[in-house]
Amino acid sequence: MSKGTFEHNTQPSVIRELFEYAKKRKQEIGNENVFDFTIGNPNVPTPKEVNEALIELIKNTNPIKLHGYTANSGDPKVKEAVAIHISKTFNTHIDPELVYITSGASPAIVFTIHSLVSCSTDEVIVFAPYFPEYGHYVHYKGGKLVAVKPGNNFIPDFNDFKHKINENTKLVIINSPNNPSGVFYDEEVILKITDILKEKEKEYGHPIYILSDEPYRDLLFANKKYPFITNYYNDSLVAYSYSKSLSLAGERIGYLLVNPKAHDSKGLYTKLIKIGHNLGYVSTSSLFQYLLPKVMDLKVDIDFYKENRDILYKNLTEIGFDVFYPEGAFYMFMKVPNGNSKEFVEKAKKYEIVVVPSDPFGVSGYVRIAYCVDRETIVNSKEAFEKLYRGE
Amino acid sequence: MSKGTFEHNTQPSVIRELFEYAKKRKQEIGNENVFDFTIGNPNVPTPKEVNEALIELIKNTNPIKLHGYTANSGDPKVKEAVAIHISKTFNTHIDPELVYITSGASPAIVFTIHSLVSCSTDEVIVFAPYFPEYGHYVHYKGGKLVAVKPGNNFIPDFNDFKHKINENTKLVIINSPNNPSGVFYDEEVILKITDILKEKEKEYGHPIYILSDEPYRDLLFANKKYPFITNYYNDSLVAYSYSKSLSLAGERIGYLLVNPKAHDSKGLYTKLIKIGHNLGYVSTSSLFQYLLPKVMDLKVDIDFYKENRDILYKNLTEIGFDVFYPEGAFYMFMKVPNGNSKEFVEKAKKYEIVVVPSDPFGVSGYVRIAYCVDRETIVNSKEAFEKLYRGE
Repeated sequence: MSKGTFEHNTQPSVIRELFEYAKKRKQEIGNENVFDFTIGNPNVPTPKEVNEALIELIKNTNPIKLHGYTANSGDPKVKEAVAIHISKTFNTHIDPELVYITSGASPAIVFTIHSLVSCSTDEVIVFAPYFPEYGHYVHYKGGKLVAVKPGNNFIPDFNDFKHKINENTKLVIINSPNNPSGVFYDEEVILKITDILKEKEKEYGHPIYILSDEPYRDLLFANKKYPFITNYYNDSLVAYSYSKSLSLAGERIGYLLVNPKAHDSKGLYTKLIKIGHNLGYVSTSSLFQYLLPKVMDLKVDIDFYKENRDILYKNLTEIGFDVFYPEGAFYMFMKVPNGNSKEFVEKAKKYEIVVVPSDPFGVSGYVRIAYCVDRETIVNSKEAFEKLYRGE
Repeated sequence: MSKGTFEHNTQPSVIRELFEYAKKRKQEIGNENVFDFTIGNPNVPTPKEVNEALIELIKNTNPIKLHGYTANSGDPKVKEAVAIHISKTFNTHIDPELVYITSGASPAIVFTIHSLVSCSTDEVIVFAPYFPEYGHYVHYKGGKLVAVKPGNNFIPDFNDFKHKINENTKLVIINSPNNPSGVFYDEEVILKITDILKEKEKEYGHPIYILSDEPYRDLLFANKKYPFITNYYNDSLVAYSYSKSLSLAGERIGYLLVNPKAHDSKGLYTKLIKIGHNLGYVSTSSLFQYLLPKVMDLKVDIDFYKENRDILYKNLTEIGFDVFYPEGAFYMFMKVPNGNSKEFVEKAKKYEIVVVPSDPFGVSGYVRIAYCVDRETIVNSKEAFEKLYRGE
C-alpha cells in the first residue's frame, strides 16, 4: 500500500484576517469610525413571523419530538414542503426523496464535491471571480479546481469554458447572483452554459454535473426571472441556504437537491447522504427544520440592500471609481485604479475603509465591498472613499 | 501524479435498517405492539428551563445578533462559559481559546480523526465494543482502525492494547460510559490506559493522542467520580454533546476541546478549525450556542433511564439471559444464548422485539438493547423476551 499523504492547503483566509482587523480597529476607535465592508453578514432582521413561529413551535410541540433526532436527510414533511415550494415557484418537478436538508449551503457544496471527485485527476470547473471556499473544498478532497476566465461584465468567457472542459471534468459550479461580483446569470447565460455542457457530455460519454449554488437567489434586485437549473439541464443539483433570504446565517439551515432527471439521481442522492454521514453530519437543527414549512414564503426586506447598492454605486461612480453594477447579492466589485488590489486594501485602511482584495476570488485588480451594512456606513464612507481616490 | 482513488466503505447501516424496520412494523401493527430497542433517541424531555431560556432569547435578543454568524469555532462568551464550567466541574484547567463549539460530538470526532490521520498507514485504536461510526470516519479519511479486544466486563484487555500500539498509532478513542455496552471506565481503568500510552509515547518519540468521546458523561448512574481525561493525560481531547444530557439530540450542539497541556495544543486546535472549515462546517446554530451558558448546569431526569435499566435488567436476568450491568448511558448489552447475533435478531422479530446485533460494534455474540424508551415498552416486553428465551 502506498503511503499517500492527505495534506492540503491550510493558508489563513485573507478575508477572515481583514474582518478580524476591522473588528479590532472598531474596538480601538469606535464602530462609527470604521467602514467595515469585509464580510457578508446579513444586517436586515429576520421577518418577525420567523421568531413568532419559533416561539409557537417551542410552546406547542412535544419537546421530545421538537428536539429529537430527525432522519439524517431531514424530516420527511420538511423535505416535502421544500419540494412543493420549489416545484411551484419554478414550475419544475422536485422529488422530496431527492431533497437533503443541510446546515446551510456550504455542506451541500462539500457533499457534492466529495461525491463527484473520486480521484486526484478529477476536475471541478468554476467561473472567476468565484467563492474561495470552492477551492478549499475541492483541494481538501484531493481534486483539481479549474477556473474559467470572466468575459465582459463578469459573464463567463464561453470559449475559455469550452477549452477547459475535458474528460476529467466531473462538476461545474455556478453561483448566481454571484459572490463576489453580484453578477446575475439570466436565461441566455444559463442556456449558453448548458448547451456547451450537453455537447461535452455527449462527446465524453459521461455525466458532467452542474451544481447551482444559490444562497443569493432571493436577493435578486433586477425584475427578472430566475432561470432554475433543473429546467435547463438534467444532470444538476441545487444548493440553497436560508442564511441571506431569511437572515438566519448563524442558524445554518438550507438544502441540497438532486434533479430527478439527473443520471442515476437516486444513486447520487444516496451517496451524498452517506458522505454527509462519513463527515460527521448527523442532521440539521430539528427546531429550524420544523420552522421551514411555516416561513418558506417569507423573505427579508431586500429593498434595504437594494437602496444600499444604489447609494454606494452612485457615490463610488461619482467619485470616479470603476464599479460593476450588481443585480443581486450584497457585494460590489470595484476596479482598483492602479490594478494592485493588495496595495489598495492597505491604502484604504488609512482612511478606515476595510475591503477585501479580489485575488482570493480568482481575479486580480479588484476589491470586494460587502454592502450588507448600516445605511450610515454607506453614507458616511463617501468622504473617506473620495480621499482614498484622490490619494490624500 | 498517481491516480489514487478515494473510494470508501459505503455499506448500509444494519442499525439504521433495523430502526426503519421497527418504524414500518409499528405503522402496521401499532406502536404499542412493537418493542423497538434499536436507537439511542432520548425519550426524557429537555428540562423546561431550556425551552423557557430559548423563548427568552428569541424575545429579548436583537435578531441580527441572535441569528447572525458567530465565529467558526463558536461565540467567544460561549466558549468561555464552557471552559469555566468544565474547569470547575472537573477541577482542571481548560482554555476557552482551545474550545470549539461543534454540532454535537460526531463532527468533533471527525475533526480529530482528520487532524491526526495524515497518511494511509496511520492507525486509530478503539476498544471493542465500539461505536461503529469511528470505523466509518477513520476509513473515510483513509486511515486504519485497530480494535482492542475486551477483557472481563468490557474493561479493555490491556495486554492486547499494548501489543496493538505501534509507531503508526496516532490516536486512541475512549468512550465512557460506553455505547453499546454501558461500561464505565473508573479512575483505575483510565490510569492503566494512560500509563501504557505514556510509556509508548516515550518509546516512539511522538504524541499519541487520546480522544475521550463523552456524550454519555452525564448519564452515569453509579455514584462515582468521572475521571476527566485532561487530569490524567496531556495529549488529550474531549468530544461532548448535549444530545443526551439535555435531550437536544436533534439540535446538534456540543464541543471539542484540546487539553492546554497537549503537545502543540494551539497548532492542533488551529488545524481542527481549518479542517471543520474545509468540510463545510461554518458554525453551530447561534440560538443554541447562546442557550448554552444559561443551561449548562441543568440535566434531564436521569433517574428515568436508571429505573428503566433496573427493571429491564431484573426482567432479563430473571428470564435467564446473561446481561451486562451497565453503569451509564442507556444501552444494555446482552449475550445471545447460541452466540449467533444475526439469527437471534431475526428470531426476536417474531416476538416483535427489535434489537441490534453486536457485530457492527466489533464483537460478536451479543445484542444491544437501547432502553431509552417508554416505561411501558420495558415492562410489556418481558413476556415477549420470555417467549424468545424459551423459543416458543
